[in-house]
Amino acid sequence: MRIDVEQCAALLSAHDDILILTHAHPDGDTLGAGFALLRALLALGKRARVVNDDPIPAKYSYLYDDIEPREFEEKYVVAVDVATENLLGSLNQKYSGRIDLCIDHHMTNAEYADKLLLRDAPAACEIVFDVIKALGVSIDKKIAGCLYTGISTDTGCFRYSSTTAHSYRLAAQLIDLGADNGVINRLMFETKSKSYVYLERMALNGLQLFCGDRVAVLTVTQEMYDKTGSNEQETEALAPLTRQIEGVEIGITIREKKDKTCKASLRTYESVNAAALAKCFGGGGHAQAAACRFDCSVEEAKKLIVAKCAEFLE
Amino acid sequence: MRIDVEQCAALLSAHDDILILTHAHPDGDTLGAGFALLRALLALGKRARVVNDDPIPAKYSYLYDDIEPREFEEKYVVAVDVATENLLGSLNQKYSGRIDLCIDHHMTNAEYADKLLLRDAPAACEIVFDVIKALGVSIDKKIAGCLYTGISTDTGCFRYSSTTAHSYRLAAQLIDLGADNGVINRLMFETKSKSYVYLERMALNGLQLFCGDRVAVLTVTQEMYDKTGSNEQETEALAPLTRQIEGVEIGITIREKKDKTCKASLRTYESVNAAALAKCFGGGGHAQAAACRFDCSVEEAKKLIVAKCAEFLE
Repeated sequence: MRIDVEQCAALLSAHDDILILTHAHPDGDTLGAGFALLRALLALGKRARVVNDDPIPAKYSYLYDDIEPREFEEKYVVAVDVATENLLGSLNQKYSGRIDLCIDHHMTNAEYADKLLLRDAPAACEIVFDVIKALGVSIDKKIAGCLYTGISTDTGCFRYSSTTAHSYRLAAQLIDLGADNGVINRLMFETKSKSYVYLERMALNGLQLFCGDRVAVLTVTQEMYDKTGSNEQETEALAPLTRQIEGVEIGITIREKKDKTCKASLRTYESVNAAALAKCFGGGGHAQAAACRFDCSVEEAKKLIVAKCAEFLE
Repeated sequence: MRIDVEQCAALLSAHDDILILTHAHPDGDTLGAGFALLRALLALGKRARVVNDDPIPAKYSYLYDDIEPREFEEKYVVAVDVATENLLGSLNQKYSGRIDLCIDHHMTNAEYADKLLLRDAPAACEIVFDVIKALGVSIDKKIAGCLYTGISTDTGCFRYSSTTAHSYRLAAQLIDLGADNGVINRLMFETKSKSYVYLERMALNGLQLFCGDRVAVLTVTQEMYDKTGSNEQETEALAPLTRQIEGVEIGITIREKKDKTCKASLRTYESVNAAALAKCFGGGGHAQAAACRFDCSVEEAKKLIVAKCAEFLE
């Protein structure tokens, strides 16, 4: 059942021992929303905790490093920034069908939760901001930092066309409330590990352009991870680079998995639907960012996908 | 003489045939400020034009492509975002000592103009916004786009620690007034020419770390421009990359000039004052971004500056 912000706050106020689920391969928005909500619930004297299927990358530690972890038997389960239950990773096995409340900004939300607060917004944190205000909790420096993190990361630091004037106004309010925008953005956007820098350099050395330079392909192999000390998680950061090249309409990053299958990340602009392209190979995603898997070598996958790109660009 | 926003608007209102000088190697802030002011003056029925010592890179054409260029004998000369006269490039020869008004946000401004409107702000466009409002000109979509461009580019798309809550609020206002933030940020931040991509790749291949990996150095030679089709203007985009490497406190990009001298761009974090480092070699700039010149080869310059870095890091 769809609910509004006031109803959402009333439900949270009425419950205790609240478990907050965030999506696997966590990003700044699911974690920012989860820990902001956690802090608000703790401020109300409730027991609550955030869980994630994956280890939380170290760069997000400022979101929660002052919070004492508490164990308790959960009585109310809330998912934040989770469009479908399978995005919970292995937590899905335990909580599928048991989620009481979902707060989300993906209009593709599968409506799996008993109650759903859904709004089309650039970040889930924009909605959690309103929920916390409706809870009557004053937004302190730490909550402001969590919410700012979600808005900044899900808008590519206020860069994507999805960013609204409201996003900028919320950011201004959060900075006034103590969010340290300089430190947060430096951590989120201006820090690359040495191993990633070496991986990026090696990948760029193999950059290939196809279809009259309208398609750019980067490939990453297990050997490249071995040589650079990098890993698959860091490879995510390569995908946007392909689309940044002037004239490129489809940017493809193909990474070899340990089992010698591979995964392609697709990035496009308005002229090509990335999800439709990924769907040709059993994948999916958004209009301008999608992914698919291949049971073959990186080189074979490249041939297959470049041939399909040529069809799409015709 | 220092003046305030109201005095600045009164001076502009009282004059006509106004020439607006922008700094050489133009960026989004000097051009955004220049063309926003030009549009406001044209809206008041005045004759005005913007000049620059260099060709304006094509990506900025949306700032002015609907304006008819007009020739006239200038009666009033205004510089925007120009901290010292020599930043005008060769225009300095003609206008040195003849600049009536300067609008700037560099607190190091040399006070070369007859009247100076100076405020510590993340972008000159933030000050020009106030001037245009004081002129009584309503900010239309085109002016909003120019001002948004300056604020976005000089804050690294709202990323740098210099970005204030006020910058975000102004951006929100400008988006409400019609600035197309998605399109502008894509042009400014998400588009790299192929020649730049090849230059970046070649430069990264020569990346060197010194002083226990606390200093990163990229070098660019004339031969690299020849091989990649890139040029000195594009080299600016390399400088921030050096500082993004985890653990690096001083990032240095040294480019060879046509006359075989060279220029070093320095980027630092709080631990090192870049302007103080540049000053050791006769240069200057801001606390975290500065530059200096060398009358020697790139390799010799690298040795000199790395030795000085070691002293600074001690």
